[in-house]
Amino acid sequence: MRSHYCGLIHEALIDQSVSVCGWVDTVRLQSHVAFVDLRDHEGIVQIVVERESEEAFRQISGVGYEYCLRIEGTVRRRVSANDKLRSGQVEVLAGRIEILNKAEGLPFALHENPNEDTRLTYRYLELRRADMQRKMRLRTRLVSALRHYLDERGFQDIETPILTKATPEGARDYLVPSRVHPGEFFALPQSPQLFKQLLMVAGFDRYYQIARCFRDEDLRADRQPEFTQLDMEFAFVGERDVQDAVEAMIRHVFQEVSGVDLGGPFPRMSYAEAMARYGSDKPDLRIALELVDVAEHVRHVEFKVFSGPANDPAGRVAALRVPGGASFTRKQIDELGVHAAKYGAKGLAWLRVDALENGRDGINSPVAKFLDDAALEGVLGATAAQSGDLLLFGAGDYKTVSDFLGALRIKVARDLGLVENAWKPLWVVDFPMFEFDAEAKRFVALHHPFTAPKIDDVADLRANAANAVSRGYDMVLNGNEIGGGSIRIHRTDMQSAVFDLLGIGAEEAQAKFGFLLEALRYGAPPHGGIAFGIDRIAALMAGTDSIRDVIAFPKTASAQDLMTAAPSRVPGAQLAELHVQVVEPADR
Amino acid sequence: MRSHYCGLIHEALIDQSVSVCGWVDTVRLQSHVAFVDLRDHEGIVQIVVERESEEAFRQISGVGYEYCLRIEGTVRRRVSANDKLRSGQVEVLAGRIEILNKAEGLPFALHENPNEDTRLTYRYLELRRADMQRKMRLRTRLVSALRHYLDERGFQDIETPILTKATPEGARDYLVPSRVHPGEFFALPQSPQLFKQLLMVAGFDRYYQIARCFRDEDLRADRQPEFTQLDMEFAFVGERDVQDAVEAMIRHVFQEVSGVDLGGPFPRMSYAEAMARYGSDKPDLRIALELVDVAEHVRHVEFKVFSGPANDPAGRVAALRVPGGASFTRKQIDELGVHAAKYGAKGLAWLRVDALENGRDGINSPVAKFLDDAALEGVLGATAAQSGDLLLFGAGDYKTVSDFLGALRIKVARDLGLVENAWKPLWVVDFPMFEFDAEAKRFVALHHPFTAPKIDDVADLRANAANAVSRGYDMVLNGNEIGGGSIRIHRTDMQSAVFDLLGIGAEEAQAKFGFLLEALRYGAPPHGGIAFGIDRIAALMAGTDSIRDVIAFPKTASAQDLMTAAPSRVPGAQLAELHVQVVEPADR
Repeated sequence: MRSHYCGLIHEALIDQSVSVCGWVDTVRLQSHVAFVDLRDHEGIVQIVVERESEEAFRQISGVGYEYCLRIEGTVRRRVSANDKLRSGQVEVLAGRIEILNKAEGLPFALHENPNEDTRLTYRYLELRRADMQRKMRLRTRLVSALRHYLDERGFQDIETPILTKATPEGARDYLVPSRVHPGEFFALPQSPQLFKQLLMVAGFDRYYQIARCFRDEDLRADRQPEFTQLDMEFAFVGERDVQDAVEAMIRHVFQEVSGVDLGGPFPRMSYAEAMARYGSDKPDLRIALELVDVAEHVRHVEFKVFSGPANDPAGRVAALRVPGGASFTRKQIDELGVHAAKYGAKGLAWLRVDALENGRDGINSPVAKFLDDAALEGVLGATAAQSGDLLLFGAGDYKTVSDFLGALRIKVARDLGLVENAWKPLWVVDFPMFEFDAEAKRFVALHHPFTAPKIDDVADLRANAANAVSRGYDMVLNGNEIGGGSIRIHRTDMQSAVFDLLGIGAEEAQAKFGFLLEALRYGAPPHGGIAFGIDRIAALMAGTDSIRDVIAFPKTASAQDLMTAAPSRVPGAQLAELHVQVVEPADR
Repeated sequence: MRSHYCGLIHEALIDQSVSVCGWVDTVRLQSHVAFVDLRDHEGIVQIVVERESEEAFRQISGVGYEYCLRIEGTVRRRVSANDKLRSGQVEVLAGRIEILNKAEGLPFALHENPNEDTRLTYRYLELRRADMQRKMRLRTRLVSALRHYLDERGFQDIETPILTKATPEGARDYLVPSRVHPGEFFALPQSPQLFKQLLMVAGFDRYYQIARCFRDEDLRADRQPEFTQLDMEFAFVGERDVQDAVEAMIRHVFQEVSGVDLGGPFPRMSYAEAMARYGSDKPDLRIALELVDVAEHVRHVEFKVFSGPANDPAGRVAALRVPGGASFTRKQIDELGVHAAKYGAKGLAWLRVDALENGRDGINSPVAKFLDDAALEGVLGATAAQSGDLLLFGAGDYKTVSDFLGALRIKVARDLGLVENAWKPLWVVDFPMFEFDAEAKRFVALHHPFTAPKIDDVADLRANAANAVSRGYDMVLNGNEIGGGSIRIHRTDMQSAVFDLLGIGAEEAQAKFGFLLEALRYGAPPHGGIAFGIDRIAALMAGTDSIRDVIAFPKTASAQDLMTAAPSRVPGAQLAELHVQVVEPADR
C-alpha cells in the first residue's frame, strides 16, 4: 500500500512519486492549500494539498485528527525547512488521497496527559505517542539483543509449562481449575525454577528463556501480576562461571542497545558489607552517603533507646550523615520521620550540627542531652560530621535499622540532588543461607529452597545453619536488583536437609517437590543459573521509573486490565464445567 | 569445570590434557583396565582408566550407569577406532576422576522404550536420549531462525497479556479466579488475536510474538492444552503482502534449519477446489489420489442413497479410486468403513474392479446392482477405473462426504505406500465467510469473527452472507494446516455487521468486544496477519508425528503433567482467598 514510511521521506527522493500511509497529526486548512502532518512509527512528513487537485482538496477538507490516510504524491523541497523533523527538508505534494479510516473525536489528544486510568483504558491511543513507541521499541531491541547473544553461544531457548504445579517462591500462586480433573488446580509459575533445573538433569547444558512469570501479590508501586524474566541455567559450573558469563552479556546489551558502557569487571560486595554500609542488599552506588555504626560510642549511655541495641548482638545503632542537612526545616525532618516509619522505624532521632566549633552549643538535637561528651564526640568523629550537616540515627534490631536508614539514604540523596548521573552495577554475594523468622520461630530461605549452601556437608550445615552462607548472588544496578541467581543443590541428601531446616517435613517435601528429589537421584549435574527482570532492565534503559511504560498492556495497581475490562464475571455454566462456584465475601 | 565437550574431543587434541564432564553411558570393567563411554549433549567419548592410576581405578570401579563424572586426562589415539562416533579416533586416558553425582538404578534404561506414562513421569531421563536432544534442539534452531529473520526486518516482538479477558475462538477458556476482585475471573488467551490488532491500531506496524496459547478442549490425538504459535500482524497490507512475506520466511527457515527447499511460489487453491478434489481444506498434495464427483451419473437411479444427494444442491456423491485396491480383503474394506464412520459416514459403498473387460461380471460390489449400465459406465469412466482398482463411494451432505472420503484418501495412501516423500506446501484461499450451523440455525465464522469479507460494503454483505467469501488464508504443508490468517475488519460498521450476522447481539458484542469496537473508531489502519503452529512445524521438521516430541514438558491426553503431578488439590484456605469453592461432581 505504500512505497515509503512517512518519517523516512528525504531529500534523495525529491521529484520522485511516493505513496505513504499514516495518521493525521495536524491539519491546517487554508483557502488555497492544506497542510497535513502525516505520522507513522518512523516519524512525520508534511503533506501539501493544493486546491488545483480538486478531488484531493475536497477529500482533505473532510479529514480530522488521527484519521488514517494513504497519500500518493511527489516529493519536493520545502520552502521553509523544519529542522526538528528528519523529513524536514522536504514535503509531499499530494496527488491522490485515500481515507483508509475515519477517526471520531479522541477521548484525549495524544499530547495531553490525562490520568493513568484513562490512558490505560485507551492504551492503543497512548501507545501511538512517539515516546511510548520509543520505549516499547527499545524493549524489543533489548530482548532481541539478549536472544542473539545467547543463541550465538549455544544456549537452548526452551519453553516450560505455564499450566503447572504450585511452586512456593514466597508469593501467592494464580490458580486454574481443571475441567477434566474435578477439584484439582493448575498453578501459573512464579518462575520456571524447577523446570530449568530438570532441563540440566536432562542434559541440555545451557538453557535460557524469556519467560512469563506470575505472582498474585498485593501490588506495590511498580509490580505487575505477570512479568517477564530472562531465565538462565548452566550445567557443570561454579558461581564465577555464571557471573562472568552473564556480566559479559549485560555489558554487551547495554552497549549495543543503549550505547552505555557499564565498565567492568563489576565490583563485588558481600551481603554483610552492603547492609552495613548502605542498609540495603541492593545498594545504589550512585549515592556516596554511607551508614556509620556508632554502637561502640553509645554502649555506656543511660539512654536505653541507644544503649539497648548497642549492647545487643542482634541490634544496631547507626548514623547517616546528611551533608548540608542542617538547612532542613523541622517540617522536612518530620517528613523524613514519616518516611522512616514506612520502613519500620518507631521514631527518628536526629542531630543538627550548626557550628561544630561551638561544641554542645553548636548542636541542635532532641537526643543530645542523653549523650555524654564521650558519646557525642565519638559519634561526631565516627561520622566525620561537619558544620551544616544533619545526622539521622537508627537504633533497634539490625534489619529494621538497616532498612529504614537505607531508605532515608536514598530519599535524602534524591532530595538534595546527590545521586550521581552514572551507571553503577555490582554483584552482591555471600548471602546468609537462612533468615530466622522470629514470629514463626523457624528458618526461612533468603533466596529459595533450592539454593546451595557454601558448606558442602550436610552435617556441617545442620550444625552451622544460623551462620551458613549461600551460593546465591544478585546483580544490582543503580539500586535495583536486576538479576538474582545461585548455584543449586544437586544432591538429594542436601536438598532434603535444607527442606528439613526450613521446616518442610518429609511428607510435605515429597508432595510438593517429590519429582525434584527423584530427579536428583539419577546423576543430576552440578548446576546454577540466574534470572533477570526484563521489565526493570528495559525501564532503566528507557529512562523511566515505571515498568508500565515498557509493557504493552499493563495492569493497574489493583490488577485490572482497564482496556479489556478483565477480570470479569463469567456465566455460571462455565464455572459449573470447571467444578467450582463463587463464594461471595460476607460483606457483600 | 571442563575444557571440552565429550562429543567434540578429536584428533587435533592428541597428547593434550583435557577435562570433560558427562554421564556414564556404558562402563566395562576388566582386571587391568576400565572403559567408560562418557556422554554429554555433543556426543560420546571413550575414557580409559588403567589400574596403574590407582585412585582413578578405585573410583571407576564404583561407578554405574548414568553417574555424573568429571574426568581429567590426556587425549590419545584409539587402538581400534569407532567410526560411529565423531570422537571415535581418540580416547581420553584418565588421570583423575571426580564423581559429581551418583545415580540410583534408573526406572528405565535410556535405550528402552517403556509406555508413554512412564516416559512422561521421568521426562528428564527421556530427554537425555540423543534423539530427544536432537528434536528439542531442532525446535530451538527453528524458533531462533524465525526470530532472527523477523528481527532483521523490523518486526517488533511485543508481549501480550496471559491474564486476560475471555476471547471466544471456538474453544473453552482456562479461567483464573481473581483474589482482588471477588467473583471475577481472568481467562488465559486462546491467541493474542485482539491484542495484536490493537497493536496495529497503536501504530506498531509490524508485530510478531512467539506466543503461548491455551485451549481447554477435549484433547484429540495430538493436541496440547498449551501450545505455541508464531503470531504476526501487519498494518497497511492486503492478503498478498502478508502471504508473500511469510512464504519467504517459511521457505528461509526450512532451508536454514533443515536444508529443505520448499520451492516456490507455493501453489494456491480455493477452499472449494480443495474440498472438491481432496475432501479437505488442508490437502496433502503428496498424495496423487483425488475425489471424483459422480452425481451426474447417478441422478436418475432408483437407489435413493445415491440419487437423493445427487439431486440435492447441498448434497454430494463422489468416488475415490484406490489403485490396486481390489487386492484388499473384505476385512480391510470393513476397516475402511470403520475409519469412514469416525468422520461421519453412515456406511461405505464400494466397488471392486476385478476385470474391467468383463463388464458387470468383472465387478464385485454390493451396490452395483443398484446402478444401471449408464450409471456404472459413467462412474467407471469418470474415475478412470482400471482392473485391480477399488472404488469407495460417498453420498450424503457435501461436508460429511468430503470429510470421510478425504480421510479415506489419506488412509489408503498410507496403507498402500502412495505418499510421496516430498514437501508439498500450498495456500488455501477463498474460504466461505460463514458456515450455516443447521442445528443452531445461524451462521458461524469459518475463521474467526474478526476476519474481513471480500465484500467491502455492509449492505452487500448482509444481502449475500451465505455465499460471501472471506479474506482468510491457510498455509498447508503435507496435509497439516501450519499457518492460518486473514485480513481483519478495520471498520466499526463492518465489525458490528459481522457480529450481528453471527448472532452476537449489540449488547453481547459490547460486553465482549466493546474495546475492539471502540478502538476501530479512532483511525484503525487496514491490517492483517497470520499465526503459525510452532509445535507442528517443529514436529514436521524433526520427522515425528507427535508434537509431544518437540515440547520439553508436554501434558498427557487427559491434560496432566505426570512429572510434577499437576493439576492437584490445593488447600481450602487458598481457595477461600480466591473466593471460590470446589463443587464435587454428583457421581463422586
